[in-house]
Amino acid sequence: MIKINENFKKMKPNYLFSNIAKKVAKYQEENPDKKIIKMGIGDVTRPLPKVCTQAMKKAADELENAETFRGYGPEQGYDFLREKILENEYKDLGIDKDEIFISDGAKCDCGNIVDIFAKNNKIAITDPVYPVYLDTNIMAGRTGICKDNGMYENVIYIPMTEENNFVPLLPKEVPDIIYLCFPNNPTGTVLTKDELKVWVDYARKNKSIILFDAAYCAFIEEENIPKSIYEIEGAKDVAIEFKSYSKTAGFTGVRCAYVVIPKTVKGYDENGNVEDLNSMWNRRVCTKFNGVSYIVQRAAEAIYTKEGMKEVKDNINYYKENAKIILETLKECGIKAYGGKNSPYIWLKVPNSGKSWDFFDTLLEKVNIVGTPGEGFGPSGEGYFRLTAFNTKENTIEAMERLKNFLSK
Amino acid sequence: MIKINENFKKMKPNYLFSNIAKKVAKYQEENPDKKIIKMGIGDVTRPLPKVCTQAMKKAADELENAETFRGYGPEQGYDFLREKILENEYKDLGIDKDEIFISDGAKCDCGNIVDIFAKNNKIAITDPVYPVYLDTNIMAGRTGICKDNGMYENVIYIPMTEENNFVPLLPKEVPDIIYLCFPNNPTGTVLTKDELKVWVDYARKNKSIILFDAAYCAFIEEENIPKSIYEIEGAKDVAIEFKSYSKTAGFTGVRCAYVVIPKTVKGYDENGNVEDLNSMWNRRVCTKFNGVSYIVQRAAEAIYTKEGMKEVKDNINYYKENAKIILETLKECGIKAYGGKNSPYIWLKVPNSGKSWDFFDTLLEKVNIVGTPGEGFGPSGEGYFRLTAFNTKENTIEAMERLKNFLSK
Repeated sequence: MIKINENFKKMKPNYLFSNIAKKVAKYQEENPDKKIIKMGIGDVTRPLPKVCTQAMKKAADELENAETFRGYGPEQGYDFLREKILENEYKDLGIDKDEIFISDGAKCDCGNIVDIFAKNNKIAITDPVYPVYLDTNIMAGRTGICKDNGMYENVIYIPMTEENNFVPLLPKEVPDIIYLCFPNNPTGTVLTKDELKVWVDYARKNKSIILFDAAYCAFIEEENIPKSIYEIEGAKDVAIEFKSYSKTAGFTGVRCAYVVIPKTVKGYDENGNVEDLNSMWNRRVCTKFNGVSYIVQRAAEAIYTKEGMKEVKDNINYYKENAKIILETLKECGIKAYGGKNSPYIWLKVPNSGKSWDFFDTLLEKVNIVGTPGEGFGPSGEGYFRLTAFNTKENTIEAMERLKNFLSK
Repeated sequence: MIKINENFKKMKPNYLFSNIAKKVAKYQEENPDKKIIKMGIGDVTRPLPKVCTQAMKKAADELENAETFRGYGPEQGYDFLREKILENEYKDLGIDKDEIFISDGAKCDCGNIVDIFAKNNKIAITDPVYPVYLDTNIMAGRTGICKDNGMYENVIYIPMTEENNFVPLLPKEVPDIIYLCFPNNPTGTVLTKDELKVWVDYARKNKSIILFDAAYCAFIEEENIPKSIYEIEGAKDVAIEFKSYSKTAGFTGVRCAYVVIPKTVKGYDENGNVEDLNSMWNRRVCTKFNGVSYIVQRAAEAIYTKEGMKEVKDNINYYKENAKIILETLKECGIKAYGGKNSPYIWLKVPNSGKSWDFFDTLLEKVNIVGTPGEGFGPSGEGYFRLTAFNTKENTIEAMERLKNFLSK
């Protein structure tokens, strides 16, 4: 008899963004004349750099001719892209080409990486958190059930709130796997090099691993904020890093990302023997994956041309300008807000100590703005609300005007 | 302390095709003047249909402009593609759009599907077999260790050899998960509708599930051979089907496939309650995947145009012509061979009861042809050897000439 993975039952019935999409669709259906401005899901709106689409078309031409046709590529990704990443993202950080694995998305990487770890590792997540880290571990059986307070058994929650200025404190109980995401999703806050070093040292001391999500690193503008965890001394022994082209070059629908696993990062078997995680991941990739689409890898390669870099920078600046508009409006309205400086995300305190889903409903129904309720990111997200800077400038301005008018009533 | 997934240690040290690639690279390095003809890995050589590359370019244009730009698509795939699949592949088979999930490859699907099943399901695989079915279950802890006879503990092996005419017999012990692939990889043999119905009835009776890999269905030319398992009465209650564009439209480097999970296919929880696998897979897809590249899905959609269908048919016929050439040559040489009729794979008996890796070395070194040793597909593959029809016609003819000359010496 075919038996299901019982861990799926531990998951809350619906995925955050599906819930939001349903609420929005229902409201729009009932109010077809309303113009809803979406500042909820972290999807981009700027088109692809031209140099990327040109590269795609050139690749399509290659695939159309028998002489230049390419079939299966390397599961780990083509060298032409891995080399560009090395040169542009990891210069002087001592990373090797074989330590970079190209994938079809950071979501997939963050979800799949847990395959190489034993079930009995204890995970730590910051709270609030990007739901994928937790959900994939629930599915893998690494947690207990969800308690009444919204927290899962056997998971270490590390609060990130106003009270600690969004700098996660070292937990009392030592975790085996530590998820960190900076610039943070959803709060938009960052860690300085010194603050991140505290975690690297802690992981080294305890033989823990840090899964570092750097998907938003391109938004960093301040000197003292690390764009890669490998800028921190000792990180190469204890950290795996995830990066993506989604939020930089607008690849959310194109699908390309990569994960870095230094050969010096080790795991341990049940007898305490050291094991090489880079080799294990390589084995996983070769067994369960067949590489990223050739045309997509060529498009990603083109990001690293002079024109590509310029267009990416322009896009980022465009979104940052939006973030600034949002931050300023919130300040004017007397709403406390965080992030939005080295990040496309603004994390605001719901006015009058309100609940985040109530605020969601109010914004949707009274102002026709969609944001993301903080509670959807974890118990410590309650009372907060996420807005993203990824809409157009025009829409961002309009949304903020509406908000200002509504709040001044 | 970070603990590794110990199951990885149970895997044999190297993946079959990496081993072959290394041997070939070494030989070529030592013999740079030799022209090696590759008939080993199942990669295609015909370029993409023009209508597909045109669709890619059009999609690239859309992504270049803010008005037509698309970000995140539905995790399950775009409706435009799901509807085409329904219309062209599942007409009159009673499949619903929501039962089709677009992915970036059948290898990924076959590997990922096991996430929704409990660890304590017992799997059955035919022997020889496509290594991914077994390897992904080893990683997931569903097997014991590899025994001296090359078989893994806690796995039901179903031999497919000359002795049973490559028709798998029902096993004595009842499996929970049954992997079937027809037209078969590696043997190239097929099952008739009646022969497949035996398995569907067996799965229904025992509440087992059949994971049916139909990646090669486009090669079927005989009426009585099912192109989809859903042609068999009752299959919609017990079968999940995998299909791919890799071997039909030459998408091995483009990456697009799909899995069909009828809502009527059920699993059971530990109390014997019925659970809906379609919903579970949907949850898995939404949590760990972000959809296939938009341009790739547009290219796949174009396969179903009149020109696309014609080009695919031409490609298939091209490969089938190669298969015929191989089969005829082997017959002339007095070598027993199977498959190659409804399939791009030819499964030959190694002459003089030889070992398959010895034959690999002989072919590589004496005839400069690369094939795949049967032993790499499982213990019952020993003594057999796989050749594929995916090379060019010119190379196939040349390879067969060489073989003929060598064997007549």
